[in-house]
Amino acid sequence: MAMSPAEEHPQKAFGWAARDTTGVLSPFNFSRRSTGPKDVGIKILYCGVCHSDLHFLKNEWGFSVYPLVPGHEIVGVVTQVGSSVRKFRVGDTVAVGCMVGGCDECDDCINKRESYCRKSILTYNDLYHDGTRTYGGYSDETVVEEHYVLGFPDGLPMAAGAPLLCAGITVYSPMKYFGLSQPGTHLGVVGLGGLGHLAVKFAKAFGVKVTVISTSPGKRKEAVEELGADAFIVSRDEEQMKAAMATMDGIIDTVSAQHSLLPLLDLLKHHGKLIMVGAPPEPLDLPIFPLLVGRKLVAGSATGGIEETQEMLYFASKHNITADVEVIPMKYINVAMERLAKGDVKYRFVIDIANTLPA
Amino acid sequence: MAMSPAEEHPQKAFGWAARDTTGVLSPFNFSRRSTGPKDVGIKILYCGVCHSDLHFLKNEWGFSVYPLVPGHEIVGVVTQVGSSVRKFRVGDTVAVGCMVGGCDECDDCINKRESYCRKSILTYNDLYHDGTRTYGGYSDETVVEEHYVLGFPDGLPMAAGAPLLCAGITVYSPMKYFGLSQPGTHLGVVGLGGLGHLAVKFAKAFGVKVTVISTSPGKRKEAVEELGADAFIVSRDEEQMKAAMATMDGIIDTVSAQHSLLPLLDLLKHHGKLIMVGAPPEPLDLPIFPLLVGRKLVAGSATGGIEETQEMLYFASKHNITADVEVIPMKYINVAMERLAKGDVKYRFVIDIANTLPA
Repeated sequence: MAMSPAEEHPQKAFGWAARDTTGVLSPFNFSRRSTGPKDVGIKILYCGVCHSDLHFLKNEWGFSVYPLVPGHEIVGVVTQVGSSVRKFRVGDTVAVGCMVGGCDECDDCINKRESYCRKSILTYNDLYHDGTRTYGGYSDETVVEEHYVLGFPDGLPMAAGAPLLCAGITVYSPMKYFGLSQPGTHLGVVGLGGLGHLAVKFAKAFGVKVTVISTSPGKRKEAVEELGADAFIVSRDEEQMKAAMATMDGIIDTVSAQHSLLPLLDLLKHHGKLIMVGAPPEPLDLPIFPLLVGRKLVAGSATGGIEETQEMLYFASKHNITADVEVIPMKYINVAMERLAKGDVKYRFVIDIANTLPA
Repeated sequence: MAMSPAEEHPQKAFGWAARDTTGVLSPFNFSRRSTGPKDVGIKILYCGVCHSDLHFLKNEWGFSVYPLVPGHEIVGVVTQVGSSVRKFRVGDTVAVGCMVGGCDECDDCINKRESYCRKSILTYNDLYHDGTRTYGGYSDETVVEEHYVLGFPDGLPMAAGAPLLCAGITVYSPMKYFGLSQPGTHLGVVGLGGLGHLAVKFAKAFGVKVTVISTSPGKRKEAVEELGADAFIVSRDEEQMKAAMATMDGIIDTVSAQHSLLPLLDLLKHHGKLIMVGAPPEPLDLPIFPLLVGRKLVAGSATGGIEETQEMLYFASKHNITADVEVIPMKYINVAMERLAKGDVKYRFVIDIANTLPA
């Protein structure tokens, strides 16, 4: 018989968990493993609220296991290091993203694309090497193998930097991989939420021309004036869409609702690239002719590898890129989730774990 | 009032044309322009029968104009050269593919991707610079601007080489562009027809491992023993498909019927590429999750640029790559089209124009 979450490990831990598909979070006593030789013990200070947390809470992807402690945009401070840990010392500010383990031997692990390892261990709602469940960053402390811990740059604000760990790397990685980070590139960004607003910021820092494509005319001001986008198109405005046809080298599509790809493909120049980073649950219609005549492609991209995530953090620090965040106390989380479901946040909630979790 | 096709140009020409959407071809008197300073006059010897000829004959893509003389896999001999022509002399064996003109000033033209020029002039069923209609290779002679004429290598058989001009370059170009021509690559080829069988031959010449994926179990022998494929999978056989999951770096999908993409995406390794070269008329279902978790892409590709097509012809000559063809007389063409519609050809009809057109 499996031991209870509070008893299976020696270190007491405390967080907020959902107990069922209502997704309502409430206080939860569990435990963490002792800090092993290769492990880093971390006191969690901030944790971003990702849209996938919401999907997991409500079991919208069908594989949630309860109790479920979400959170994979973690910033904290090192409290313990194992005997063989070399990269970190007690007191260092560190971060943890979407994964805490992998097979370390597949092509993807070997080639520093750990996020694509088929045995990648998610930061929460997964099984760790020892067979126990992983619990995320809506909690006081965690223990993570050194390889999956990131150094958090000194100059980077912790709360506003937390969303870089998932939202940030999710838009940074495909811009680099698909060659959309070169100055002179014209990039479209579809959807101005947690991912989209960071895509605009990274793209501008790369020297890329950015056009935001949104269903909401009201977002023009924030896109152009606040985030620095070069242009803004209302996707439902046929005139605006037509005027922008064949002007973009690439598009980062952050929308996870069902939507039509053809109008986006039409915005691309020949040889252009439409990169999906949102996850619509049902298949989308893919017209083949526009792909053929323009040698266009539609691709997906997940988060990045550990080295790339570290590189992204340094880049963000150098270029003062952080998320626009609303810092919330832990007890506000269930309201925050309702607001997130409605898109009512500019642009990311971050939980002030250290100051509000125990209260 | 437009002049009749037989009177609008000074040179008499003769071919076979369809007069309406029945697509039935019959003898047709028309005319060609005089050989201008930049033009090459060509006596047509062979012309391949491409599946798109069938689509055009029956107006399946909705923009056919009749009378319509198909044919864009042309091999012939130079009979006249304009005063500024430098690459060709009378008596040279030459070839013409899918296009006979372009704007010569767009990004695609300048960067030797003429097949993607938005003003590309198709070899038939298009309007030439002078406003007259283009007629294809099911005819005795043609006149083509030097830039769009290809040298046909001496050692390459003319009849069996003709299909390289469309089918060949259509599979060669994406293998090069998408990085699927490196030795050690594992390539899937979906559909063993005109395009598919050439994809196998080019891939083997590149040193690539090839698996043919087909709905027809009966094609195993020809795929493996005759064409040299390394493996063969029946796409309807779940066991076989499952055994091949996550093994391929890329797939060239030549099927133009509606079909499911998910099983093909599953055959790809992470970061794998599914390249569509067939043209299903209706959109296909694109599941997004498999793209995200494996950073996979779905792309389309058309034919190649002029320089690349020339390179392909030299490569084919060096590696003895030709299509498997059934050479037919002109008068057989309507039967051939019926057989082509049923997939009853191994793998390409080629019309012996010089010996059978006038008869």
